[in-house]
Amino acid sequence: MGSVEYKGKASELLIENDIKIGQSINIQTNNGKYSGILLPRYELFDDNHVVMKLRNGYNIGINLTKIRSIEKGSSDSQYGAYIVGKASHNVNQTIGRPNSDQAKVEGTLPKVALISTGGTIGSKIDYRTGGVTSVLSASDLYLSVPEISRYASVDTEVLLNEYSENLRPEHWTLMANKIIEKTSMGIYRGIILSHGTDTMHYSSAALSFALRNIPIPVILTGAQRSSDRPSSDAALNLIGATKFAIESEYSGVFVIMHADASDNLLACHLGTRVRKNHTSSRDAFESIDIKPVALINGENIKMQHNPTLELQRREDANYSSYKTSFDRHVILLKYYPGFEPAIISYLVQSGYKAIIFEGTGLGHVSNECIAQLKQAINSGVMIFMTSQCIWGRVNLNVYDTGRDLLGIGVVPLSDMTPETALVKTMWLLANNQHSGDIKRMMQENMCNEISSISPIQLDKK
Amino acid sequence: MGSVEYKGKASELLIENDIKIGQSINIQTNNGKYSGILLPRYELFDDNHVVMKLRNGYNIGINLTKIRSIEKGSSDSQYGAYIVGKASHNVNQTIGRPNSDQAKVEGTLPKVALISTGGTIGSKIDYRTGGVTSVLSASDLYLSVPEISRYASVDTEVLLNEYSENLRPEHWTLMANKIIEKTSMGIYRGIILSHGTDTMHYSSAALSFALRNIPIPVILTGAQRSSDRPSSDAALNLIGATKFAIESEYSGVFVIMHADASDNLLACHLGTRVRKNHTSSRDAFESIDIKPVALINGENIKMQHNPTLELQRREDANYSSYKTSFDRHVILLKYYPGFEPAIISYLVQSGYKAIIFEGTGLGHVSNECIAQLKQAINSGVMIFMTSQCIWGRVNLNVYDTGRDLLGIGVVPLSDMTPETALVKTMWLLANNQHSGDIKRMMQENMCNEISSISPIQLDKK
Repeated sequence: MGSVEYKGKASELLIENDIKIGQSINIQTNNGKYSGILLPRYELFDDNHVVMKLRNGYNIGINLTKIRSIEKGSSDSQYGAYIVGKASHNVNQTIGRPNSDQAKVEGTLPKVALISTGGTIGSKIDYRTGGVTSVLSASDLYLSVPEISRYASVDTEVLLNEYSENLRPEHWTLMANKIIEKTSMGIYRGIILSHGTDTMHYSSAALSFALRNIPIPVILTGAQRSSDRPSSDAALNLIGATKFAIESEYSGVFVIMHADASDNLLACHLGTRVRKNHTSSRDAFESIDIKPVALINGENIKMQHNPTLELQRREDANYSSYKTSFDRHVILLKYYPGFEPAIISYLVQSGYKAIIFEGTGLGHVSNECIAQLKQAINSGVMIFMTSQCIWGRVNLNVYDTGRDLLGIGVVPLSDMTPETALVKTMWLLANNQHSGDIKRMMQENMCNEISSISPIQLDKK
Repeated sequence: MGSVEYKGKASELLIENDIKIGQSINIQTNNGKYSGILLPRYELFDDNHVVMKLRNGYNIGINLTKIRSIEKGSSDSQYGAYIVGKASHNVNQTIGRPNSDQAKVEGTLPKVALISTGGTIGSKIDYRTGGVTSVLSASDLYLSVPEISRYASVDTEVLLNEYSENLRPEHWTLMANKIIEKTSMGIYRGIILSHGTDTMHYSSAALSFALRNIPIPVILTGAQRSSDRPSSDAALNLIGATKFAIESEYSGVFVIMHADASDNLLACHLGTRVRKNHTSSRDAFESIDIKPVALINGENIKMQHNPTLELQRREDANYSSYKTSFDRHVILLKYYPGFEPAIISYLVQSGYKAIIFEGTGLGHVSNECIAQLKQAINSGVMIFMTSQCIWGRVNLNVYDTGRDLLGIGVVPLSDMTPETALVKTMWLLANNQHSGDIKRMMQENMCNEISSISPIQLDKK
């Protein structure tokens, strides 16, 4: 796999000494001598390190400037097949082991499962076309970020290899079932899902409902820049996700991505309250209407816990109680001036069971729509109201327009994001028979999707 | 009209002295004696002022704490009918005159036209229901903010009285035609449009195209809180809009609203690059991907001019060249996981001429949609791509998904906001015959709707 070759100075050093991946090597540094196997290393950040698996089983990344000599060892022995073979194929194997120089815990490190689904975090630039293609598996990713092995013993698995714009509700079910399977093994301190960023916030919301009451943290992370670009955010995001999975006392579904333009601060967002708000910047993800759950700065995790969130890890877990299905008969529809109400009739006739409106301001659509909405509701289609403003809460009690919508049975969804409202409706529809129950549950706060701050406090975002 | 009655302490003082609106009064203050007519004053900020029209024709607001005595004057005379009658009915009359104590310019002040269209800025709370209803005309508004008369002589006109969620493209045409009529009179330094905030950014974008090359500034402003609430932003927004209309050297269409949570800083946004990003906060409006054109802090207007914007006032104007029509056969459609491509066929069959997608990330929809999009394009429907991320630029060259979309003829719209893309398409469709021309013009920067910053600079929002 090209993805695990060295390049630049590291490559030159290896060629000069006629050393290939999987071979036994001895490296002399100022701190001592290391013997082991040269690991494949994807060209993630720079070309200044080589990575080797020591005889004690730990991985270590060594900076070229610290290498006084490098030479082939006596044997290509027992590690070769394991590393070059399995590491590139990678289903359900523990390949992570701590760097012996840096491990903070003697003996067994806490275990984390890393499940890859595709996306930029597992991509690299095709230097021929200038575009990006998806090539890395979870174990490639893990191998390319050896720092992770300082914190955790990581089991990797490839679940999907899709850019996230191609993910559908049935993929959320796959993810949820896989996470339940891993969690029920009882051996993982947390689970990390590498995921494309385009729809990461839809998936995190969907998993929040499907994995409601999951006893451990499930963390989605990804990259806005492919892993082989110098500006890639992949490594820091993966390291932060691992640290949070191990060290936090939280359970639930989270998104961890860059918090600002620096390359050292990460934010941990609630799965139901996060949104991708920039097409390309590394800090594209933001918590909506609440602070991020935590900020992660190097070794320091600063919890910003809101006591009402009830996120503590749990001892109880009934693994047969999870509901992981989603019903696609829901549309997310943005209102705008000139919106033609006829589309509402089309949706009713086409079998849609619910419409999530992104209304204007406090949750409005024009009076032109009232008649068609009333007909839709009379036909049994549920109409939910969110706001295209993104920040702030809908309120249908302030203006005539809102009161008219309430009057015909439109259901306002407080400050739930439109994206979360969509997946919550899909989830409730798949798992409940009665629309009365669904409408009631849509207005209940099940997974922190509605913030409990009073409207007056929300005044300033 | 209830909207022009006094309340609270001012009302008590007037009742105590048996003085009614329209009557002649004499007020003695520490600074001198004022004789004139008691003007109607809407209860906008507080109950600490009365407003009178002096015999020299100027209006003055007097703080109750400065009043040593107030009494009925000798005659209800020539001003009565004018004020109580016309001021409440208000078509095309100059009612503004400077406060003689405060006027900075002797003699004639610059003229501004204030056109009201409805919305919260012209609303008050119904204390019976707790809701808000629309009641104020442009002249009511003007009378309620006497500070404006320090800067400008204001002509007021009621064009519409609609909450902005009920405004449609045909209303944009009405607004544009009215503004052209006013501008062509050649007597106004600027034009202010009071407008509901729900769709103010759609209207500002629409007017930017319909009034392309307008020689003077056209400023949309409104309020997030009704004018009679203590926290109302109506007065400051109106004052700032007036100052900017008079003092700036800019032409074009702008939105002026609160810039932060304080009640003293305003931001002036380009009409094509502004969005309502909060349901209720007073600083809900933000410039997208560029800085606001100006910040207004009390008397100080700080221009933040980007030299590429070409906004200077113009001497030339061909009033017959404006194109003020819009074609509603466009839909703004948000992509999400689970989006059913069948809706695309419905739109083609229903006669839509263009679809503006809010894609994910850099401008993506799932590969499930490709076939239907291809059919739509083959049927002559134009497909334009924007991003639901709001900030940042679409780029269809980075990923396979994007290249597939480009391949079938989807047209990417750089960093144009979805809302601006929608109204630009509506405007081009109404005024051009050939889809090739329209696609080309959609990618051209006509009214600063595409920022000229390179993608790399846009990296950080």
